[in-house]
Amino acid sequence: MKHVIIVGGGFAGLNAAKKLGGAADVRVTLVDRQNYHLFQPLLYQVAMAGLSPADIAAPIRSLLARYENISVLQGTVQSVDLQAGTVSADFGSLEFDYLLLCCGAVPTYFGHAEWEPYAPSLKTVPQATEIRRRLLSAFEAAERTDDSERRRQLLTFVVIGGGPTGVELAGAIGEMSRFTLARDFRNIDAKLTRVMLIEAGPRILPSFSERLAGRATRDLEKLGVQIWPNSFVTRIDENGIEIGSERIRAATILWAAGVRGVELAQQDGFELDRQGRVVVNGDLSIEGHANVFVAGDQASFTQRTGKPLPGIAPVAMQQGRFVAATILRDLAGKPRQAFRFVDRGQMATIGRSRAIVEIGKLRFCGWFAWVTWLVVHIYFLVGFKNRLFVVLNWAWSYMTFRRGARLIVEREWQFGKTKSDDKEPI
Amino acid sequence: MKHVIIVGGGFAGLNAAKKLGGAADVRVTLVDRQNYHLFQPLLYQVAMAGLSPADIAAPIRSLLARYENISVLQGTVQSVDLQAGTVSADFGSLEFDYLLLCCGAVPTYFGHAEWEPYAPSLKTVPQATEIRRRLLSAFEAAERTDDSERRRQLLTFVVIGGGPTGVELAGAIGEMSRFTLARDFRNIDAKLTRVMLIEAGPRILPSFSERLAGRATRDLEKLGVQIWPNSFVTRIDENGIEIGSERIRAATILWAAGVRGVELAQQDGFELDRQGRVVVNGDLSIEGHANVFVAGDQASFTQRTGKPLPGIAPVAMQQGRFVAATILRDLAGKPRQAFRFVDRGQMATIGRSRAIVEIGKLRFCGWFAWVTWLVVHIYFLVGFKNRLFVVLNWAWSYMTFRRGARLIVEREWQFGKTKSDDKEPI
Repeated sequence: MKHVIIVGGGFAGLNAAKKLGGAADVRVTLVDRQNYHLFQPLLYQVAMAGLSPADIAAPIRSLLARYENISVLQGTVQSVDLQAGTVSADFGSLEFDYLLLCCGAVPTYFGHAEWEPYAPSLKTVPQATEIRRRLLSAFEAAERTDDSERRRQLLTFVVIGGGPTGVELAGAIGEMSRFTLARDFRNIDAKLTRVMLIEAGPRILPSFSERLAGRATRDLEKLGVQIWPNSFVTRIDENGIEIGSERIRAATILWAAGVRGVELAQQDGFELDRQGRVVVNGDLSIEGHANVFVAGDQASFTQRTGKPLPGIAPVAMQQGRFVAATILRDLAGKPRQAFRFVDRGQMATIGRSRAIVEIGKLRFCGWFAWVTWLVVHIYFLVGFKNRLFVVLNWAWSYMTFRRGARLIVEREWQFGKTKSDDKEPI
Repeated sequence: MKHVIIVGGGFAGLNAAKKLGGAADVRVTLVDRQNYHLFQPLLYQVAMAGLSPADIAAPIRSLLARYENISVLQGTVQSVDLQAGTVSADFGSLEFDYLLLCCGAVPTYFGHAEWEPYAPSLKTVPQATEIRRRLLSAFEAAERTDDSERRRQLLTFVVIGGGPTGVELAGAIGEMSRFTLARDFRNIDAKLTRVMLIEAGPRILPSFSERLAGRATRDLEKLGVQIWPNSFVTRIDENGIEIGSERIRAATILWAAGVRGVELAQQDGFELDRQGRVVVNGDLSIEGHANVFVAGDQASFTQRTGKPLPGIAPVAMQQGRFVAATILRDLAGKPRQAFRFVDRGQMATIGRSRAIVEIGKLRFCGWFAWVTWLVVHIYFLVGFKNRLFVVLNWAWSYMTFRRGARLIVEREWQFGKTKSDDKEPI
């Protein structure tokens, strides 16, 4: 009975575990710091108050409960001893015959960690709810104030990073301010909200074709988003941002400009690329240890074309399944194969009813692309949640402009504040 | 044009505002510390991982958006100047012609505020998610440990307070441990969980008839809940509780044993009862100021029978509507009437399919009572949310034992923790 340890319950880890579930001679332990698997492509919906966290996450042990040979533990893995074949976690040590590291990526501020409090990024559920809190609170504060300069600052939203995440966030904010919230306020005209999408490169969505990126630009502008290409942020603080000698006063700044691999593998035996991702061989194992694999956003896998695969969900899913299949081939005495990513295309949404879809040479946009995006995401979401009508509900309220999760949930419960006059900062 | 200020967007405040909405000659400003109205009867479902906060809350300004004469501000009212006719909030001062205070109640620990960190109560959304976190984390930690004494402590849950809230919490924990989670763990037998309901009085549910309370007791015991009447808690700390010379080691303790009125009205001009609630006249105004009203959990209104009305949702709803009607009568030159509470009964659930219902002399229990409970709550929930199939979804997953919101969402996002090795305490 071989013991496989999987560190990380995201797309790669979950898919690897499912493929090993029920296999003879294999015992799996999956460890994750959280108890839930998060469907990250929809996390921006939580940040934009369209969904609740529970709509896009599910407890890992529930998803794997049917497999008797899989055990799920919630804990933090702190280090890996490649020689001894053990992982060390906050609850103890475990020995492995095979190890799969798939802990994902974390945001990077390119050496400016001090920017983070002012410009949260979007990787975890608490970040998403913090963003939601800041967003909605900005409108509430603008409703209360008479200071017109302060009001303008409160109704200015800056999104840094012109990739799909930034585009989706900016489009959602633009749409929220011009449609969803327009009716709800008396003192402010939510349509006067400034939404700026800052991109350092020459255009947004560099991974898409120029034509589709141009279409996305126009759709964003229809939602009131101003796009600033060729703009490199030089400073972020509590007042706003600086781009060279330009200054913008903004109360809400979101960071969607860069990620790096988590630091678990910062040790001997792991070769890292410049983004802190672990360089892997053709079969996704690390050099010198054929029984240790890395997959998903934490891995740096270079195809024959010479460019590393991007940190996106389809790559993680395919790599997770591949590692599981590789382990099973090992146990069956079959030779290993090389991983080959099957590119099924990419998509990005702009607001509630537009999107761009690119599959090889097939490119389309507009409402039909958005329906495609919705169907694909429902498929993958339902595939594990089996709650189709939760998603239908979201789609319905989404279409009627009523955002379903517009709660500013006050920050963490403060012990001892049973008095009514605790002043929670907005 | 008279200006009515409503402080608090709960059942009383929301119903008062709706009744004043659209009325000529009346301008309403509703102030609440949160931006949402919370359907508190279902808050225990959030704590028990059955619902998400957004399922039982809605933004106040959305609920009132259709009334042009109502303005909603999110902020904290700090004091009331009865002579000057103004309220002072963290965003400025407002003058009123009429004032309605309905800020609700907060938990009381009967002089032992130091118990609160160990025994959270259930009044707000962050408390509910904190309880959910502790509950699910206890099972996760028990799964990880080999120390059998520690495991027993982790699988011991104490609920203090035998009223409807305590009964609903205890029943839900018992059911969760024996049914929902039973399949999901490998190392622990969730059915060995100890759930204790501690009540200082001679029996649980003192506001119900003895027969129904007896039925509830038996239903709870079928779910594995041990009921401890005549038990007065003398100490709560990180190890567990003490009842006189008895000691119980428990990792999770919940407080459902007492509330008091919020302290906004701790000043001259407001007469308070022993629970800190404001004593009001027959028309819900305070003595000496006919234009200042208090309603809901914050008010102490004594009926002819001599006992103050309890702090329950139907009382708050009826009082809120009554105050609005009284103001309108004033403006129409009509004389005031006395408030009379129409008691439409009470109910409490025990687990997912049983309840007790008492309406006057009509008493029933079991599954049919639970359906009644469900229909009543859907009615009041839908009455403002208009998302019937969200609730149907909940009812469906509820019936199939799959609790819909079993996420241990990590505590507040910590700035600067972009490293992967931050150790979030469980």
